Amino acid sequence: MKLLRFGPKGQERPGLLDADGQLRDLSAHVSDIAGPDLSDAIATAASIDPATLPVVEGTPRIGPCVGNVGKFICVGLNYSDHAAESGMDVPPEPIIFFKATSAICGPHDDVEIPRTSKATDWEVELAVVIGKTAKYVSEDDAMDHVAGYCVVNDVSERDFQIKRHGQWVKGKSADTFGPTGPWLVTRDEVSDPQNLDMYLEVNGHRYQDGNTCTMVYGVAHLVSYISQFMSLQPGDIISTGTPPGVGMGQNPRLYLKPGDVMELGIEGLGVQRQRTVAAG
Amino acid sequence: MKLLRFGPKGQERPGLLDADGQLRDLSAHVSDIAGPDLSDAIATAASIDPATLPVVEGTPRIGPCVGNVGKFICVGLNYSDHAAESGMDVPPEPIIFFKATSAICGPHDDVEIPRTSKATDWEVELAVVIGKTAKYVSEDDAMDHVAGYCVVNDVSERDFQIKRHGQWVKGKSADTFGPTGPWLVTRDEVSDPQNLDMYLEVNGHRYQDGNTCTMVYGVAHLVSYISQFMSLQPGDIISTGTPPGVGMGQNPRLYLKPGDVMELGIEGLGVQRQRTVAAG
Repeated sequence: MKLLRFGPKGQERPGLLDADGQLRDLSAHVSDIAGPDLSDAIATAASIDPATLPVVEGTPRIGPCVGNVGKFICVGLNYSDHAAESGMDVPPEPIIFFKATSAICGPHDDVEIPRTSKATDWEVELAVVIGKTAKYVSEDDAMDHVAGYCVVNDVSERDFQIKRHGQWVKGKSADTFGPTGPWLVTRDEVSDPQNLDMYLEVNGHRYQDGNTCTMVYGVAHLVSYISQFMSLQPGDIISTGTPPGVGMGQNPRLYLKPGDVMELGIEGLGVQRQRTVAAG
Repeated sequence: MKLLRFGPKGQERPGLLDADGQLRDLSAHVSDIAGPDLSDAIATAASIDPATLPVVEGTPRIGPCVGNVGKFICVGLNYSDHAAESGMDVPPEPIIFFKATSAICGPHDDVEIPRTSKATDWEVELAVVIGKTAKYVSEDDAMDHVAGYCVVNDVSERDFQIKRHGQWVKGKSADTFGPTGPWLVTRDEVSDPQNLDMYLEVNGHRYQDGNTCTMVYGVAHLVSYISQFMSLQPGDIISTGTPPGVGMGQNPRLYLKPGDVMELGIEGLGVQRQRTVAAG
């Protein structure tokens, strides 16, 4: 099932994409795709024949596919080739950092390049959406706590991240630095999260072209690992790292400027498209 | 004005402490002290004669003084003496990291020592509660965005923070690692946030005994600085760092064990008291 949220920012309504790619309105049945009720919302949506749901006419804005996210957790250097292009070793255990939840935006919203930024960069990532509270869960049980998957662009300001005296959160948290969606694809529809093609293009040139099979620490390991340090709640997002091909890895380095267009996607999870603009 | 939230975890109701130290129920007038409506809630509370509010009988649990916190932002090494005891230089600009919002708990709730922890430590901190959205604000305008202040214990697992291969968030985010309150003291009641005595005792011994006058980067600078990297929303918390005297700074180092009692307070902002327990 492909769930999504549509409508103006802050007023998104829940919907689903039917087998014909038609957007259907779920708001008569579930209040949102968010928070403690996330798994109930998925169960309710799954119990309905999509053909009975109202078709959404026109082309509304698509919002982030999960609302009211409590934690936006990211994994650093989790593809061996990306670590190499960043000039860093693969870490002996996962590197964890947070993005601000206020960075979350819709998959096709404009991405703001912060004032004074000279090094705004892209990162296509497979994100895991938590469906059930997880605390000290084993790797064997971890997948029971996963509601589904989505695409995240972990937009990053490299100078803020690396040169501004710690921690990485400084370069990860600007408004619109977290396009999320278009869809929350439920776990049952993703037979193997460790074998998904993924890509990112800027102005039509493909810079990232990878597959989640080269991830160092896989989804089940990450959910279990993170749950040893903090509890995970429904609606929390774990963005699992990016394959090679970021702007910082180009020779010479290449960063975003206003008017650029990013397109990124992951097999079965849909495509995002953002235009960059200068922050007001 | 001293605002607070009382009642069972997740079902807290808003209240205020009157001039006689009596807890009064605000729930007929405001829905919560939280989120986008935080400033409206404060304005509403200020417009009411406390004597007309119902007295809360008994001794209910006190919850975190702000609900539904979007970002729990912390400042590292922000007291010169604490940097010295940690063996680190004062940073040339503020170090910023996040705690998980799921770590937030009431000021007198038990603090869990995580499984496998050998280095759980304490940090009394002055926390700033944001009242109005802040994005690229100047230092001159910064205080207009502050709703008030509270006490935070930035409980920290030093091995998770420092030895587990980054970032600090790993050692800062366990459940109950963020006791917050007892009160949100509105800005008008704190004439100088850079001159407040603060202390923390463990089992009756005073380990931290400082004053916010030795803070490296003050409140107005921090609000302005952080707003250059991310927008701040009403209800966001900025915990501004800790003075000397943490467990890691003792010789030999001293860490918390189940059954210990922490008591900590800041001048005018009230006192917290937590017992430590082993995580279940």
